[in-house]
Amino acid sequence: MTELRENCGIFGVYGHKDAARLTYLGLYALQHRGEESAGIVACNGKKVRHHTGMGLVGDVFDEKAIRSLSGHTACGHVRYSTTGSSEEKNIQPFLATLRRGHIAVAHNGNLTNALKLRREMERKGSIFQTTMDSEVIVHLIAKSGEKDNRHGIVEALSQLEGSYSLVLMLDDLLVGARDPHGFRPLCLGQLDGAHVLASESCALDLIQANYDREIEPGEIVFIDKNRVESTKPFPGRKHAMCIFEYIYFARPDSNVFGNSVYLTRKRLGRQLARECPADCDLVMPIPDSGNYAAIGFAEESGIPYEIGMIRNHYIGRTFIQPSQLVRDFKVRVKLNPIKDVLRGKRVVIIEDSIVRGTTSRIRVKTLREAGAREIHMRVSCPPLRHPCFYGIDFPTKKELIASNHPVEWIRDFIGLDSLEYLSLEGMLESMALPGNEFCTACFDGKYPIKHSKRLSKNMLFNLS
Amino acid sequence: MTELRENCGIFGVYGHKDAARLTYLGLYALQHRGEESAGIVACNGKKVRHHTGMGLVGDVFDEKAIRSLSGHTACGHVRYSTTGSSEEKNIQPFLATLRRGHIAVAHNGNLTNALKLRREMERKGSIFQTTMDSEVIVHLIAKSGEKDNRHGIVEALSQLEGSYSLVLMLDDLLVGARDPHGFRPLCLGQLDGAHVLASESCALDLIQANYDREIEPGEIVFIDKNRVESTKPFPGRKHAMCIFEYIYFARPDSNVFGNSVYLTRKRLGRQLARECPADCDLVMPIPDSGNYAAIGFAEESGIPYEIGMIRNHYIGRTFIQPSQLVRDFKVRVKLNPIKDVLRGKRVVIIEDSIVRGTTSRIRVKTLREAGAREIHMRVSCPPLRHPCFYGIDFPTKKELIASNHPVEWIRDFIGLDSLEYLSLEGMLESMALPGNEFCTACFDGKYPIKHSKRLSKNMLFNLS
Amino acid sequence: MTELRENCGIFGVYGHKDAARLTYLGLYALQHRGEESAGIVACNGKKVRHHTGMGLVGDVFDEKAIRSLSGHTACGHVRYSTTGSSEEKNIQPFLATLRRGHIAVAHNGNLTNALKLRREMERKGSIFQTTMDSEVIVHLIAKSGEKDNRHGIVEALSQLEGSYSLVLMLDDLLVGARDPHGFRPLCLGQLDGAHVLASESCALDLIQANYDREIEPGEIVFIDKNRVESTKPFPGRKHAMCIFEYIYFARPDSNVFGNSVYLTRKRLGRQLARECPADCDLVMPIPDSGNYAAIGFAEESGIPYEIGMIRNHYIGRTFIQPSQLVRDFKVRVKLNPIKDVLRGKRVVIIEDSIVRGTTSRIRVKTLREAGAREIHMRVSCPPLRHPCFYGIDFPTKKELIASNHPVEWIRDFIGLDSLEYLSLEGMLESMALPGNEFCTACFDGKYPIKHSKRLSKNMLFNLS
Amino acid sequence: MTELRENCGIFGVYGHKDAARLTYLGLYALQHRGEESAGIVACNGKKVRHHTGMGLVGDVFDEKAIRSLSGHTACGHVRYSTTGSSEEKNIQPFLATLRRGHIAVAHNGNLTNALKLRREMERKGSIFQTTMDSEVIVHLIAKSGEKDNRHGIVEALSQLEGSYSLVLMLDDLLVGARDPHGFRPLCLGQLDGAHVLASESCALDLIQANYDREIEPGEIVFIDKNRVESTKPFPGRKHAMCIFEYIYFARPDSNVFGNSVYLTRKRLGRQLARECPADCDLVMPIPDSGNYAAIGFAEESGIPYEIGMIRNHYIGRTFIQPSQLVRDFKVRVKLNPIKDVLRGKRVVIIEDSIVRGTTSRIRVKTLREAGAREIHMRVSCPPLRHPCFYGIDFPTKKELIASNHPVEWIRDFIGLDSLEYLSLEGMLESMALPGNEFCTACFDGKYPIKHSKRLSKNMLFNLS
Repeated sequence: MTELRENCGIFGVYGHKDAARLTYLGLYALQHRGEESAGIVACNGKKVRHHTGMGLVGDVFDEKAIRSLSGHTACGHVRYSTTGSSEEKNIQPFLATLRRGHIAVAHNGNLTNALKLRREMERKGSIFQTTMDSEVIVHLIAKSGEKDNRHGIVEALSQLEGSYSLVLMLDDLLVGARDPHGFRPLCLGQLDGAHVLASESCALDLIQANYDREIEPGEIVFIDKNRVESTKPFPGRKHAMCIFEYIYFARPDSNVFGNSVYLTRKRLGRQLARECPADCDLVMPIPDSGNYAAIGFAEESGIPYEIGMIRNHYIGRTFIQPSQLVRDFKVRVKLNPIKDVLRGKRVVIIEDSIVRGTTSRIRVKTLREAGAREIHMRVSCPPLRHPCFYGIDFPTKKELIASNHPVEWIRDFIGLDSLEYLSLEGMLESMALPGNEFCTACFDGKYPIKHSKRLSKNMLFNLS
Repeated sequence: MTELRENCGIFGVYGHKDAARLTYLGLYALQHRGEESAGIVACNGKKVRHHTGMGLVGDVFDEKAIRSLSGHTACGHVRYSTTGSSEEKNIQPFLATLRRGHIAVAHNGNLTNALKLRREMERKGSIFQTTMDSEVIVHLIAKSGEKDNRHGIVEALSQLEGSYSLVLMLDDLLVGARDPHGFRPLCLGQLDGAHVLASESCALDLIQANYDREIEPGEIVFIDKNRVESTKPFPGRKHAMCIFEYIYFARPDSNVFGNSVYLTRKRLGRQLARECPADCDLVMPIPDSGNYAAIGFAEESGIPYEIGMIRNHYIGRTFIQPSQLVRDFKVRVKLNPIKDVLRGKRVVIIEDSIVRGTTSRIRVKTLREAGAREIHMRVSCPPLRHPCFYGIDFPTKKELIASNHPVEWIRDFIGLDSLEYLSLEGMLESMALPGNEFCTACFDGKYPIKHSKRLSKNMLFNLS
Repeated sequence: MTELRENCGIFGVYGHKDAARLTYLGLYALQHRGEESAGIVACNGKKVRHHTGMGLVGDVFDEKAIRSLSGHTACGHVRYSTTGSSEEKNIQPFLATLRRGHIAVAHNGNLTNALKLRREMERKGSIFQTTMDSEVIVHLIAKSGEKDNRHGIVEALSQLEGSYSLVLMLDDLLVGARDPHGFRPLCLGQLDGAHVLASESCALDLIQANYDREIEPGEIVFIDKNRVESTKPFPGRKHAMCIFEYIYFARPDSNVFGNSVYLTRKRLGRQLARECPADCDLVMPIPDSGNYAAIGFAEESGIPYEIGMIRNHYIGRTFIQPSQLVRDFKVRVKLNPIKDVLRGKRVVIIEDSIVRGTTSRIRVKTLREAGAREIHMRVSCPPLRHPCFYGIDFPTKKELIASNHPVEWIRDFIGLDSLEYLSLEGMLESMALPGNEFCTACFDGKYPIKHSKRLSKNMLFNLS
Repeated sequence: MTELRENCGIFGVYGHKDAARLTYLGLYALQHRGEESAGIVACNGKKVRHHTGMGLVGDVFDEKAIRSLSGHTACGHVRYSTTGSSEEKNIQPFLATLRRGHIAVAHNGNLTNALKLRREMERKGSIFQTTMDSEVIVHLIAKSGEKDNRHGIVEALSQLEGSYSLVLMLDDLLVGARDPHGFRPLCLGQLDGAHVLASESCALDLIQANYDREIEPGEIVFIDKNRVESTKPFPGRKHAMCIFEYIYFARPDSNVFGNSVYLTRKRLGRQLARECPADCDLVMPIPDSGNYAAIGFAEESGIPYEIGMIRNHYIGRTFIQPSQLVRDFKVRVKLNPIKDVLRGKRVVIIEDSIVRGTTSRIRVKTLREAGAREIHMRVSCPPLRHPCFYGIDFPTKKELIASNHPVEWIRDFIGLDSLEYLSLEGMLESMALPGNEFCTACFDGKYPIKHSKRLSKNMLFNLS
């Protein structure tokens, strides 16, 4: 399943002389959460420096840029690809000056009342330069009557609805926050006495920081030179962590919401083997996202695990598309089937999820051309039927294949001999946390927040 | 005189299907007013598109960028080079959305009360993203209680002090304005029924537009699909047009403040020949800025005009500096003296102005090495002694050579046989407009605006 | 094992209107054989066009370049990184005009008598522009007294010693050749009636061409508009195919020397499990080169297969090295261990080979930091002890860790609990071809060609 | 006159520790002789380093490239733009290794027997990689039976016909040579004990080297650590220096063939005023090539000199062409007429030469639009009627307007009130050298070399 895009990755460091460089490395480890743009803001307590750009982290920053970002505090952001034309304005962190001094905000999530808040402030004479939720948050902080920065931040966040994991940086303060539902992840770690915030623990691993804990839903942590102060100022809400982080988004070597992604995926694969067995000669994943569930499936079922398709490591963005010359080239170039492994075999493919089904269709076709006799697919989550309003850029309901078609139709569309999905119960049982801690709206349509009007972020503004 | 930098060039078009492309060409013609960055905002009445970048106009825009800027209205800006590190944020036009819709502002000048206005608004909860005066202007327009856009703009501009020539673009309105003193130029023209605003008339020439007239000091013109409406809502002030536009900044093929720059420079040269004659074999300019005064000097004096130094047309910014290998290479590479013309001759050089004197010193040295027997210099304006607070990036008083030294000292520093400057009276008499229409503060220290504290723009903010 | 570099990949097409585009795709599939530079020459029977550059295939060619390479015949080349400074001259294919018309040569291998041939020709007045073996080949063809092109080529090749797989292109002729020992691979395929030559079959797969067969050792094929003509004009020699193509170089989805690389690697893993068992909790590969032997090992041993380290897919060449900040960063960033999988476990790692041992050492350290209790390593080939003179850029004998140290020393250097290598016999038995078909000189020092003086290619010339 | 392109500029240094850097600067000064590509070869007596590229000197070389070119000897080349597609191969200097060691050749001119020599050598088994004359020269040197390098070079050059000014570099020898006719210039200078060769003296000026003398027609100078040895081994021929170097090509601040270009152009202008007077209000040049003749014309005629058109200094190659929006934009953007100077005036324009007349036509049109009442043109050379076979890239006879049309027709085509050309006699009388020293074939068709078949260089080969 390669058609989904997470919305963002965020990172922050307080109290390290190489804060910007660590942030750069942290963003590098979080690159899978957003490939379109990247930005870092650093502060030495007085001066603020920022550097942002379109593209991968490794392209946006060079040694000179990193060196210019001096200071012991830094925060950073990677963003997924949007369709707007003037996207440079929307690169995070959002940075501004206000009477409280400088402020920078890196946001992962989607505020469901952002437009409402914005329109109110515009009526009162505020100007907006971007279409980002983070600009709304900064305006709220600027307008808070609270003299103290921390109280001002609490007051501002109390007006937000929707999903947010945030890293905020003020002149000498780093703040981490998760919304009361806890939709998106954010964890806390330490390195050489410095404190670190990151969307996923793999970012801590890369900089060799220790993992402390997940920030809790509704928790705000204020980090300054004296301590890490924690507060939970908001009324409790039903927890609604995004289960799709485990299914697909997070890196397998990460710990999110306090548990191992790799082991969770293996358990999903084992459960899948129990619920939906297949009489086959070999189990294979669609690399790389299906690798771990496939190992679990193979172990539980006793069917041999094979790498039936090889990933091409040289896929670049500048590749020339020979559309008319080789059919489906764009999909084919990424994975090449191993004919000698597949020829004459009954194959069960393990997929993490199916969104549109179009890529799966081509994959199955190439496997048949390579000689596979039977092709069965087992999916390690239930059918995806509903859009997400909390930060995942799903296609519209119209494009979600399972939203409009029964499983048999999907099976035939993809060209499979059989297709089975893991049950909702089976999926929840495979988790290390209780099932009611999760948001499963994309599967069952039960949205944790009531929406009068469901608006996608992209519909909101015409700017850009 | 090559050490000065103008602050900006501005341009706007209303009512042409190729508005952005014309703006691109207009900025190209105004490139000499700002080589550091360029930006264009275009609007089709609903959607706003913008494209900005560091570098020359020809580098910032390509065909794709121009095509993306669709719409019948556009405004653009070129900016001079500053020393700040995160300059990308400060590229104009400044673009924002407010309850009135989109607004874009291109500003040439320097507001002397920008910091005061900004601090007041920050206290009331406004956030600022840049250190530009144009952001202050947009905030004032956003906060105006006036319902009507035009009244809101007048209310906002009435709070400004200092120098400004502005092009503002709202969703279906183009606005041109000059401050009541009229420090910086702005002219109006027409092309195929469309209206055009530009800092100098050379921008109209390039797009083959007709020149109508200079916008008057204190005048605001509102251009929409029906008409060009003019208003002068502010109390009259002493006119104070920047005489340095004639001396050095404006292109010789331009008309600024209603008069020809070329002919004015020739008159300055003639006056200089009358006031400060020289007994020499040949007259030569320092190309290209001294060319026109030199022709005037030669005509009036009867001394033959020669091109004693040849300009190198291949000077690029990436040039490797062979500092230790060739002394003063950076200056030498630009102009090469003609030995066969200079050998044994008594030469009078015509300079438009002297700022630091360091470049002149090297030039004179190369002329002596080329064989000139005597070298006299005549300068087509009085000594520069005072900084500018209205938009010209002069060096500090400390660095202005004439601020600290008598003419004899400067003569010896540069290595001349004689040095004479045009008198203030002679300069003003050479103008086509009455002398009291001009700001001459850089020569005589008589600033048209009282300043409680003189702050340079660069001192204001730390946000870099 | 990531420290080795293959020397080249070659590709050719005859008789397809999109010959250059197919060659581009073929080189893309062969990118792993050479990442430093790439080149394509195309011919329409009269005009020859070429395009070459430093860097990856996707960077060297854009749509415009591909379109300029018109013609129904094309050949291409990818090359590994060398240390010389003026490498651009050495980008293949080598192209020249001679009385026979144009000729282009793409060469994979290493001629052991290139210097001798070159010196002789220089004595007779020849000039050389590069240090490449392919230029020597072209000179020999130019000098051949044979009137017929094919005879001229045979005469030229008969003078060569060492290893060569070649694609030659003359104005209307495509030629494929392997040296009589058959060191390097070259296969033949078909697409829409066109004939294709490629180092590995994965290049045929990507363009959806059919695989026909491997070119035989000592065979030359002449492809023109009428037929594919095969000849074996040279006396037979002992076959000496490079066994390292199976161990490490070739892509796992390729067929080289007529057999599946993937299945061969699995058999090596199975044999390794039989010869060198390990009492462990899990089997893991060093991705990706050890993946297939690890699966074989797991199957044979019954120990569970886990992906204990995750590959980072965003490794770019421009990455900033934070050397002082994170120890061994360059190695760490590529693979991240999964702590939750490794903690407290006894692990057996499957490596394809060990060259210097330095990377393995860091890997083992990170696995220990991640919590592995015991770490054992099993290597799917014997110790590498001797340099290669036939085209593989091994380090010098000094740097080959097994050339100078016993296995116990290597085990301690890398920091392992145990280390075992597959036996030479075990390796040869795992092959689908008889053992005496292979060159095993890097393991046992038995070189198939006698060398009076062993010269590495880099020692030959001072040019560049 | 902006439609002509010189073929090349050459430069060499012997005996300076910064030889490559000086060569870089020398090429920079010679940039007007070739804007398409640039190359430098440096040698420290043993190792040869080279760096070449497409584009301007400032783009091709950066600090790193210059530093890599270590050694006390260097030679360099700039080349004009050709239409071939694979031009990179043809960047000079041509570098090769032969039994004599390394050799590099930089050539300015055109060998009229290059194809004949090449075909002979190909028949004997030589291979050619480029279509450049310099490769032919290197082959001849390689094949010379003479043991001594200097004798070998003399033997090789004795076989050449046509025009050549050469800088050759062998491992520890720098050689300068001009063909016996002396078509193209080459001068000798000194800097800190090092010897320098350059196409024009402006290159010596930039590096502050002393100008010694012009190399004589048929002279070869051998420069080594001991001395500058001069020889004239060839039979004398009629001198035929290119008069067009004075008319248009050479920089006005250069000395070529021993005389000042600036003063020669002024004399041409004075002679023109005498032969072809005009009753006008002002004299103006087409900048910059007509500047100097215009000054001479103004002095002789007493008509005031004005700069009627201003050159735009920001013309870049990446400029977007708004062809449909502004007619003749490409020409217009370069020079802008000064309306206030031209309005109502009778103008005489001084042109250095007319090739196709198309640019002049647009210029005259813009001058009329700017208000000029009468426009007369005076050209400082006779009508150009014949192609050049000695290195100047004139258009074909068909495209040379004066080759096919009488002066009256040209006058009307360009849209002039009157048009007059300087006479051949007047032109020759304006020279400091006797008239019979020059080649005037482009004016009178009297070619100094008999050609059996006149072949342009571009017709010769199909390679690239």
